[in-house]
Amino acid sequence: MSVTAAKGFTAAGIAAGIKESGGPDLALVVNQGPGRAAAGVFTSNRVKAAPVLWSEQVVKGGQVTCVVLNSGGANACTGPAGFQDTHATAERAAEVLGHSAGEVAVASTGLIGLRLPMDALLTGIGTAAEQLSADGGERAAVAIKTTDSVHKTAVAVRDGWTVGGMAKGAGMLAPGLATMLSVLTTDADVDAAELDAALRAATRTTFDRADSDGCMSTNDTVLLLASGASGARPDREEFAEAVREVCADLARQLIADAEGASKDIRIEVTGAASEDDAVEVGRSVARNNLLKCALHGEDPNWGRVLSAIGTTSAAFEPDRLNVAINGVWVCRGGSVGDDRDLVDMRGREITVTADLAAGDASAVIWTNDLTADYVHENSAYSS
Amino acid sequence: MSVTAAKGFTAAGIAAGIKESGGPDLALVVNQGPGRAAAGVFTSNRVKAAPVLWSEQVVKGGQVTCVVLNSGGANACTGPAGFQDTHATAERAAEVLGHSAGEVAVASTGLIGLRLPMDALLTGIGTAAEQLSADGGERAAVAIKTTDSVHKTAVAVRDGWTVGGMAKGAGMLAPGLATMLSVLTTDADVDAAELDAALRAATRTTFDRADSDGCMSTNDTVLLLASGASGARPDREEFAEAVREVCADLARQLIADAEGASKDIRIEVTGAASEDDAVEVGRSVARNNLLKCALHGEDPNWGRVLSAIGTTSAAFEPDRLNVAINGVWVCRGGSVGDDRDLVDMRGREITVTADLAAGDASAVIWTNDLTADYVHENSAYSS
Repeated sequence: MSVTAAKGFTAAGIAAGIKESGGPDLALVVNQGPGRAAAGVFTSNRVKAAPVLWSEQVVKGGQVTCVVLNSGGANACTGPAGFQDTHATAERAAEVLGHSAGEVAVASTGLIGLRLPMDALLTGIGTAAEQLSADGGERAAVAIKTTDSVHKTAVAVRDGWTVGGMAKGAGMLAPGLATMLSVLTTDADVDAAELDAALRAATRTTFDRADSDGCMSTNDTVLLLASGASGARPDREEFAEAVREVCADLARQLIADAEGASKDIRIEVTGAASEDDAVEVGRSVARNNLLKCALHGEDPNWGRVLSAIGTTSAAFEPDRLNVAINGVWVCRGGSVGDDRDLVDMRGREITVTADLAAGDASAVIWTNDLTADYVHENSAYSS
Repeated sequence: MSVTAAKGFTAAGIAAGIKESGGPDLALVVNQGPGRAAAGVFTSNRVKAAPVLWSEQVVKGGQVTCVVLNSGGANACTGPAGFQDTHATAERAAEVLGHSAGEVAVASTGLIGLRLPMDALLTGIGTAAEQLSADGGERAAVAIKTTDSVHKTAVAVRDGWTVGGMAKGAGMLAPGLATMLSVLTTDADVDAAELDAALRAATRTTFDRADSDGCMSTNDTVLLLASGASGARPDREEFAEAVREVCADLARQLIADAEGASKDIRIEVTGAASEDDAVEVGRSVARNNLLKCALHGEDPNWGRVLSAIGTTSAAFEPDRLNVAINGVWVCRGGSVGDDRDLVDMRGREITVTADLAAGDASAVIWTNDLTADYVHENSAYSS
């Protein structure tokens, strides 16, 4: 159902000839109204792609009519000419759809440092516009894939209104503010400020806590568009929770499809003095290559968890740390705990629990194992 | 020549039965004097192994007579019992050699979270003491290897005095203050304060700037012992430079032998506003798994360099960044530069130059590529 699950949206996904493979590579998402409110969060990487710089400005206006998304090229590190390409993309969509370019957001994904094939892209926008439909959400989700093996969509249906969305991302997957490309839509009647608050709250505990490979992208974009077509004005908290549910679902799908991964790893930090401490520890554990290799090998190597915790500034005493792997407390009081042979790691999902014994705060960070397949995929990507 | 290159030192390396493989696993380094001055730097990981906690106290006294080093077990995260094991190790060496345990430093390396086989270790100390000799440095260097494929030694000979050393380390190789185990010796007549100053200055720009896999150890130890046996009192700066030379040589050997590596990567950050900025950027680039995969595949993927720079707080403007790979400026002004096909990456050593165009400071960080062999080695290490 994707971005067209909510009323008031049409979408399309086509093969425009941007990817050398000839696969689907261009998506349009159009808000047919009556409302146009929108919000967005973007990468905190200081090296930002041209479409991020453009769309940040568009979203500041609080209204988005159309989102143009392409795979096959990130349009990052392409200089002023690359920014002109993004501008021309928005102008073309505005012309075809009869709107203002200032309400057209653009998102790109693919290799950094390459100019986009603009003839193919601009022609493709016309073709895609002709194919816009109220059931085009799936095709749009397919068209934004890069190394993703499956397309990702999610929907939360409530009483009279809906939040839906799509996302892509499989590598360079570690959030600053958000990671990857994602577009969410709703037919609820919600203004831009409330959309912004709901989206920031949702991404903070979902996309922001997916950390597959520690590498922050130049193109991360999450947009939330509201058509108001349902006429419903949901309770603020209920709406925020629906947005969070869709973001969490999509973030979980990103982790499940991460490049080369054979294990989805839930890092659960408990007993922290603050949520910030819990996130810092979770992220440090999630980024420890040695641990990620060990979990790949189904080795409950808790020593590598402690060595990662030890690099943080979180409040803890080394001799009070406890670590469980899939529920078995293999480390107690900073030392050897229960028998590591009790740990069953054969399933795809592994939970690492790190108890800092320093307070009541907690956080969950999702990551993956580090595999030879990840190395293979990323040593050959642009060659 | 190792730790016995300098006059006044004896050493031994034996197979004490600590390693299951039966290979060499215990080393002694003894300062025969007349001087006993010493200095040390240790891991800044807050989860510190028992021998680190012990040796930090010993070094505070400014005198070290003997260093006991073992491979086959890190004695980290072993609780109060593990600390008692280290204490007993020092007591045993003191008893055998007729010195005070308060002047015996201990260093251990191997798996975290396992108690050492103390019978084998204590018996081994007696055996090793009988084999101490003025040419035992090489055997000591061999005995501290874990996943190292070769042993590492270095010597700087000056006019009438010498600095020599040995080191081990191939994984969990990213410095806090220092990384891995290393013992340096000199026959120069230098007091503890000057040793400390020379050692801290040397490790700051050598071991501290080797970052193979971003994983900081619980056991990092670098010791510098002075016998004064040459009778020479070198100029302070000349001495510091000799210590730096030996540290740099050993650090470079660590990188060359890092687990699974097929490329040694020199990250050279120039044009930084400060040395701290240069180090932060160098480390961020060195820890970027995607770049490390790309360099493994001989792909001059400068976009991944920029995405790593963008995550730092260093002073720079994205559109002024320049990146060269093996001397070819593939990125100029934050965008596409010279033809990437001009880059020859067939050799083992690769230089990535990141010019921040923000000042005159610079720094060099050494790292390795990320390979399937690294994953294989570290997913099977403790199983």
